[in-house]
Amino acid sequence: MPKIIIGVMGPGKGATPQDLENAWELGKQIAQQGWVLLTGGRNVGVMDAASRGAKSKQGLTIGILPNGDRASVSEAVDIAIVTDLGNARNNINILSCDGIVACGMGAGTASEVALAIKSQKRVILLGCDRETQVFFSKLAPTGIQVVETVESAIALLQQWVSV
Amino acid sequence: MPKIIIGVMGPGKGATPQDLENAWELGKQIAQQGWVLLTGGRNVGVMDAASRGAKSKQGLTIGILPNGDRASVSEAVDIAIVTDLGNARNNINILSCDGIVACGMGAGTASEVALAIKSQKRVILLGCDRETQVFFSKLAPTGIQVVETVESAIALLQQWVSV
Amino acid sequence: MPKIIIGVMGPGKGATPQDLENAWELGKQIAQQGWVLLTGGRNVGVMDAASRGAKSKQGLTIGILPNGDRASVSEAVDIAIVTDLGNARNNINILSCDGIVACGMGAGTASEVALAIKSQKRVILLGCDRETQVFFSKLAPTGIQVVETVESAIALLQQWVSV
Amino acid sequence: MPKIIIGVMGPGKGATPQDLENAWELGKQIAQQGWVLLTGGRNVGVMDAASRGAKSKQGLTIGILPNGDRASVSEAVDIAIVTDLGNARNNINILSCDGIVACGMGAGTASEVALAIKSQKRVILLGCDRETQVFFSKLAPTGIQVVETVESAIALLQQWVSV
Repeated sequence: MPKIIIGVMGPGKGATPQDLENAWELGKQIAQQGWVLLTGGRNVGVMDAASRGAKSKQGLTIGILPNGDRASVSEAVDIAIVTDLGNARNNINILSCDGIVACGMGAGTASEVALAIKSQKRVILLGCDRETQVFFSKLAPTGIQVVETVESAIALLQQWVSV
Repeated sequence: MPKIIIGVMGPGKGATPQDLENAWELGKQIAQQGWVLLTGGRNVGVMDAASRGAKSKQGLTIGILPNGDRASVSEAVDIAIVTDLGNARNNINILSCDGIVACGMGAGTASEVALAIKSQKRVILLGCDRETQVFFSKLAPTGIQVVETVESAIALLQQWVSV
Repeated sequence: MPKIIIGVMGPGKGATPQDLENAWELGKQIAQQGWVLLTGGRNVGVMDAASRGAKSKQGLTIGILPNGDRASVSEAVDIAIVTDLGNARNNINILSCDGIVACGMGAGTASEVALAIKSQKRVILLGCDRETQVFFSKLAPTGIQVVETVESAIALLQQWVSV
Repeated sequence: MPKIIIGVMGPGKGATPQDLENAWELGKQIAQQGWVLLTGGRNVGVMDAASRGAKSKQGLTIGILPNGDRASVSEAVDIAIVTDLGNARNNINILSCDGIVACGMGAGTASEVALAIKSQKRVILLGCDRETQVFFSKLAPTGIQVVETVESAIALLQQWVSV
């Protein structure tokens, strides 16, 4: 049976120190729950930090790479899926997950949250600014959850995957 | 030489009457400029209205369909590109255009605006609410232009394509 | 209503002089029929030659590019669709056409013929060697037509699109 | 560090009893080598049999699904990647693997072998008929290896991944 997969999406180079700290802790706690972590797979920002956090607890990490080879993969990714789809791979990130946490915000992450809403996937926003919360909550009144801490995100994910 | 392609993106079923009126007029004026119109191609909402507007002036209309056949295509689409990519086709909509107008807002349109910002494509927001303007303007301070009228959108596009 | 689109697929750099001559003539005759030509869009080989042939008779030419920009586009392409999908774009080439001619053979072309068979699209093989004919005819006994001349290809396409 | 991934491709409904037997044994021996198995992920044919074989030895199994949800996934797939790309997902199957075995032949498998050649990935043909061997060996004189047994396939893969 397919394992439970939780996606952590967030900025690459534009990630803040707080985004990176949240991402690492999210990855760690996702691994502790026995869930598989899925990210965009590259060796920068939230993708890399979440994968490293998961590996600190021997979690399994999947990276969905935009490029046509593994050159940009994070060292903390176990399973590198090489798509060569550029940003079109963002839709795969969303569709493959049982729950998604957006950890920080950038253009790529915004596209992923929007694609998740479009596909009626539930998304948690962690550490997003007020403008982001207002925009996405208006776009999807019931599909978006705003949280302040990693623990709150994990608690919501536990509810979702236990159904 | 490739022709100038202008994309008009916007909600399908969720389009407002004002969105549809703007989309039709945009399509008409894009055709009058001699530009090719590109949309998501389906027979609903902004896609359909813009394509109909363009055909009212004998414009050429391209539709980038998410499905694996032409069943959902707008009657006003001349060239149906059948992608079978689902929402991953949104990235093609963005990359193929010399200029993009978001006419109204929904989850799919939000993903397209975000993907455009990610790919450093310039986008015009027409008829978007305050929350949308604030969110995307913060995400891309120099890449987003907010306008109130079709005429203003066309004027900006003229500047862009003349460079 | 969507226009009739005929795809011409074939090798890029590996095209033979005969492939290029056939491609040019196919493009020309497709344009003379009033059909739209669709190719892989790049400025080499069969794609380029077919597009040039179509433009010699003022045909409309579509190019489905694998890259993320127009840098590699043929001068004879009117409508450049920028996919950034790499070879995954081959499936779009196939799904978008009312009829497909493989003009010569290479790895990319072989993938397109196979994808066409998979999607139950009819394909004409023109100027393919004996091994290619045998392989694909066995794979799809009713889906593949082998012809020796451009005129025979056009005659088959006329039958297909008139239904 | 990314794990070694071996792809097993082959027909779904069209698989022969011999294809299924080979696929199961391939999956088993791939798991015994400590490699990750990647397939097209559906609950039919070679994909399903290879995944079941790998699970018989506690291997890790990845399935790259063409659909937009997990409805068609094999029970023996651990990690379901949901692409919603239709047959365009075949290119991901190829690009993600360190080595590929085509186990039997059909239109989808033929597209995968052709895409592998196009991307200069090495492919092993197991249990393919004479026409298939002749066609692909001519298309890629140095990229294709024809073998008669699962053991020979594994021996080749061992050479490839040890470099």
